[in-house]
Amino acid sequence: MSTPQVAVVIDWGGSWARTAVVDKKGNILWQSRNPNPRNGTKEEYLDNAERLLTTAIKQTGSSQLVGIGAAVAGPVEPRTGTFYQPPNLKVLDGVSFKALWEGKFCLPVWVGNDANLAAMGEYYYGAGRQPTDNNCPVQTLFYVTLSTGVGGGAVDKGSLYLGANGLTGEIGHTLVDSTDYALNCECGSRGCLETKVSGTSIAYIAKMKVSSGEFPESTLTNIDSAVLDSEAVFSAAGDKDPLAVSIIDGVISALGIGLTNIVHLFNPDMIVLGGGVTVGLVKLDLLTQIKEQISTRTMSAPHNDFQLTSTALGDSVGLVGAAAMVWEQFK
Amino acid sequence: MSTPQVAVVIDWGGSWARTAVVDKKGNILWQSRNPNPRNGTKEEYLDNAERLLTTAIKQTGSSQLVGIGAAVAGPVEPRTGTFYQPPNLKVLDGVSFKALWEGKFCLPVWVGNDANLAAMGEYYYGAGRQPTDNNCPVQTLFYVTLSTGVGGGAVDKGSLYLGANGLTGEIGHTLVDSTDYALNCECGSRGCLETKVSGTSIAYIAKMKVSSGEFPESTLTNIDSAVLDSEAVFSAAGDKDPLAVSIIDGVISALGIGLTNIVHLFNPDMIVLGGGVTVGLVKLDLLTQIKEQISTRTMSAPHNDFQLTSTALGDSVGLVGAAAMVWEQFK
Repeated sequence: MSTPQVAVVIDWGGSWARTAVVDKKGNILWQSRNPNPRNGTKEEYLDNAERLLTTAIKQTGSSQLVGIGAAVAGPVEPRTGTFYQPPNLKVLDGVSFKALWEGKFCLPVWVGNDANLAAMGEYYYGAGRQPTDNNCPVQTLFYVTLSTGVGGGAVDKGSLYLGANGLTGEIGHTLVDSTDYALNCECGSRGCLETKVSGTSIAYIAKMKVSSGEFPESTLTNIDSAVLDSEAVFSAAGDKDPLAVSIIDGVISALGIGLTNIVHLFNPDMIVLGGGVTVGLVKLDLLTQIKEQISTRTMSAPHNDFQLTSTALGDSVGLVGAAAMVWEQFK
Repeated sequence: MSTPQVAVVIDWGGSWARTAVVDKKGNILWQSRNPNPRNGTKEEYLDNAERLLTTAIKQTGSSQLVGIGAAVAGPVEPRTGTFYQPPNLKVLDGVSFKALWEGKFCLPVWVGNDANLAAMGEYYYGAGRQPTDNNCPVQTLFYVTLSTGVGGGAVDKGSLYLGANGLTGEIGHTLVDSTDYALNCECGSRGCLETKVSGTSIAYIAKMKVSSGEFPESTLTNIDSAVLDSEAVFSAAGDKDPLAVSIIDGVISALGIGLTNIVHLFNPDMIVLGGGVTVGLVKLDLLTQIKEQISTRTMSAPHNDFQLTSTALGDSVGLVGAAAMVWEQFK
């Protein structure tokens, strides 16, 4: 038997850096994680990641390590692996992990945006492996992460859609609200999907509504503003708290708009939702409602011919997605 | 010398059916057109197209005719060539030109959506051949037709992005207006880009504003409502008529939103605008303003690294696009 091949992968978000050793079937053989330093310097962030990678490389033992795949939270140029103005890792602007780590570890390194790679992970090793409603293999999968921020990625017939510079699938910064009440977005614009459906935004909207004093009977008013998060809003919505229900209705309606745009532009046969907010949506069994909202907006019946589902890979989607990118090089 | 190869192509819109003979370099060697019957039956529409195709086939003379390419105004399934609920050719719903014409003409037939194929035409034979600002070849081109309706298409590294069923690039039915004043769209939804920027919508908005009586001094009030069209609005805007200027400002601002969504999702390095409304925008030199609107909305500087330009193929973009689809089969 030949030596089994493995990839070392890293999923590098604003809060955590995770690493794993992944085989060619997308199985995680070993994994670990470290919190990123809060407001750390470039060196502190890099040290954290490199320590994790060094440990992961040691874990590959006698397997043949083919290279490193990195999923990073922010826009990244796929050829050079350069990070562009990552909103949650700002001090890393302009850093190329590819150049840095190929020199350091003497291994080939591939870098991609985490939400883009999550789409690859789900296509090859997750939701995309499930039979579709009509029993055909999935052709076009769009992944959306609903988390601290909102991002996405498209895989079409097995290939990640990268566009000119790999800066694709940014559904979080498509417009869903053009009213005078549209909220400001982290990206500098207003009314983006992210301002309506990210975990941060759900918490922000809840705090705003609570402090308006208009909902004195809501259970959310009993929660200290410092700990009022999107999970609390989902939990209260599950108990039919009217304020929480109205906030989650806003999430569903914004997703109805944002995902209809995706359906009309990318014509996916599968949309996969991931991230913490998706956990809340699934618990309250709201995916059917979102699908219905999209159906009322689509321009033709065949556009509705897609499955809306939640991540099959959960928290590991970034790691497995990074591995999918590595294995794509060895097909 | 070997026999030169040619393709016969048809561009089938709501108002006109056009055919041409096109060589491998995208040159139109011969062309003709016929108006479609108004509110015709399925048979009348098909007769018109088939008469044109028969004439075109005769024009190919001693050249080697490799097949027929059809660009059609509406959603079309690329494998079977079946038309889905085409808004301007409703009686043709469910018809497969591919099946029909392969039987009739004993030639291979390929069918695509006209705006999708226009993207192919511009990529291979039009604006995509021009050197970009940084002198690199165009990687990812998004084409938008601003005409009676609004559609689009994406070509990435030479391949048309088709999604699961070829129903992609429908930028006309992405949301740009979520206010209570959003206009109803032909597609059944509200606030779509098409309701703000199509020729039909520009004329409709002008008529609505004129009949409101709020702009008694506008020159548009002197035009008979039956003939008040988007051209008249552009012309009055050129003369600084305040009503016309405000309508065109609305067009620019809606395009700013719709195209920012495209930039964030597809990351093109070239966006090409075509169709009659584009002629008006170019005459008033408004493309720079549209680009600026996009720049104020984009989430990162590298997303702005694209060229916004107008069609290099003009009215022939559908014909040449259909030919590009044919030649793609013989690469």
